[in-house]
Amino acid sequence: MREFDSAAAQAARDRQDRLTKPPGSLGRLERLAVFMAGWQGRPDPRIERAQALVFAGNHGIAARGVSPFAPEVTALMVDNFDRGGAAINQLCRVAGADLSVVSLELDRPTADFTTGPAMTGEEVAQALQAGARAVDPHADVLILGEMGIANSTVAAVQAAAVFGGTGAEWVGPGTGAQLDMLNVKVQSVDAGLERHRAARGTEAILAAYGGREQTAICGAIRQARDLGIPVILDGFICSAAASVLLRDDPAALDHCLVGHLSAEPGHARLVERMGKEPVVTLDMRLGEGSGAAVALMVLRAALECHNGMATFAEAGIGA
Amino acid sequence: MREFDSAAAQAARDRQDRLTKPPGSLGRLERLAVFMAGWQGRPDPRIERAQALVFAGNHGIAARGVSPFAPEVTALMVDNFDRGGAAINQLCRVAGADLSVVSLELDRPTADFTTGPAMTGEEVAQALQAGARAVDPHADVLILGEMGIANSTVAAVQAAAVFGGTGAEWVGPGTGAQLDMLNVKVQSVDAGLERHRAARGTEAILAAYGGREQTAICGAIRQARDLGIPVILDGFICSAAASVLLRDDPAALDHCLVGHLSAEPGHARLVERMGKEPVVTLDMRLGEGSGAAVALMVLRAALECHNGMATFAEAGIGA
Repeated sequence: MREFDSAAAQAARDRQDRLTKPPGSLGRLERLAVFMAGWQGRPDPRIERAQALVFAGNHGIAARGVSPFAPEVTALMVDNFDRGGAAINQLCRVAGADLSVVSLELDRPTADFTTGPAMTGEEVAQALQAGARAVDPHADVLILGEMGIANSTVAAVQAAAVFGGTGAEWVGPGTGAQLDMLNVKVQSVDAGLERHRAARGTEAILAAYGGREQTAICGAIRQARDLGIPVILDGFICSAAASVLLRDDPAALDHCLVGHLSAEPGHARLVERMGKEPVVTLDMRLGEGSGAAVALMVLRAALECHNGMATFAEAGIGA
Repeated sequence: MREFDSAAAQAARDRQDRLTKPPGSLGRLERLAVFMAGWQGRPDPRIERAQALVFAGNHGIAARGVSPFAPEVTALMVDNFDRGGAAINQLCRVAGADLSVVSLELDRPTADFTTGPAMTGEEVAQALQAGARAVDPHADVLILGEMGIANSTVAAVQAAAVFGGTGAEWVGPGTGAQLDMLNVKVQSVDAGLERHRAARGTEAILAAYGGREQTAICGAIRQARDLGIPVILDGFICSAAASVLLRDDPAALDHCLVGHLSAEPGHARLVERMGKEPVVTLDMRLGEGSGAAVALMVLRAALECHNGMATFAEAGIGA
């Protein structure tokens, strides 16, 4: 497992202080450059190859009526990804990321977590491996996203399992649940928490609630860490999935940025509990990696400044 | 003067509701696409040509010691722009904007506004024209920025002249003023406000306080409006300059976005008084148009989604 390279980060910080600008005046852009330097292990971090991975899965909990969209829409949206018609396709093009979509047994939904474990230990292991295998070892940065009808209910129960709290504290509208449907989401989360009280570790929580795309996200995050690839997480669902890793290792997400603050109400509390500061806040709540892709553009801006600006000495300027 | 095309905006809004995503789930990206549709007067707004204009000027108030940088740095930074070494050069490259830097008589600073008017009426007219002339009539969007040692003091007094309040409410560190220097900034602003109490209209306020780069920004904003070009303002100094236009016409900035919320303390209050919602908040405080250039990337993301996504009907998806 790669650790943060403090020497590379310090060299990047020193360079920032010599560039032609008041010290600190590029704000978050400076901190992003230093973050990338530390995790890439070089004082001049680069993004030649950005990979975007979107994992798709289906969920037994969907049968309880927790989403305005039918489970069939997961596969239809994967087709839409493959044809280039979704938001993430446009965002990857403009942000310069290579998109891969990984469908995880869409015709075999995970089990309803209110009546038993969503996945077997074997299924968890397979989904972790699918996530790890999908990571391009030559990527300079990895964007993670997901697609799965009903998966905001899974995210809410994962957040509660990791950080405590009840369904009412973590459930939100997702793709647009209202009124009775919101109540079903809350009740499903509370029933799941009650049933799987004993699930404490990362694998146990993944098995209890699913889903395959969340588990693959965890596998990809671990793999990226092993390979020294910084990660940009997306919104509520992606962040909740990632936070399950914190149960086994509080430092498991140190190489991850949260790309954006989602409009899904639980996300603000979630990123606070994760100790993360989202890169942008654009009132987005789509998933697919869409907010992370926008954040990639900001990251590119940060590195362009870091590597391309003249120093005061080069420009012949003294304060 | 071009007005907002409500029909084009409504057509854009209708298209957003048909795209393959839960309605509203792209948040600010949707609203930016609709904004661009209305101001470009087409339901499919485009950015083929983005122009970034940075105006540079010098200020008599600098002699009072309101900046840690000497006035000579304005010209040195213009050289740095011309050689491609500044932050705005890197940000324009990554955001896809054509940068033009317009130096406004750097060897002839405006007068100290605490002892008299900073500019004559003739000088105001010339700087307004310089700003207007610099606008590329074929631009699809215009980014505005500035460079001018001491100009955060001018911005503070402009904000106070437009929206009320005293030096203490609007002055901040700028490029890094501390302690005694901050007090000099506050005293300068209060002295200027006292001396130019009678200045109420746009031209009168510009003449009272200067500077040339702020006045050129006003000229460019008016020209862009005449040409139907949406504008992205930068941070505190650019926003304060633009707000002077509100004295003559409360609708003068309707075609303008504020690109980012600056870390300069007065900017949050300023954008609130302007009724604007900054696109990004990245703790930047550099000027040069740097925050506006990052916002351009978000705007591009918005338009890529708007124009490139499939509709539900095209993707064969029903809710």
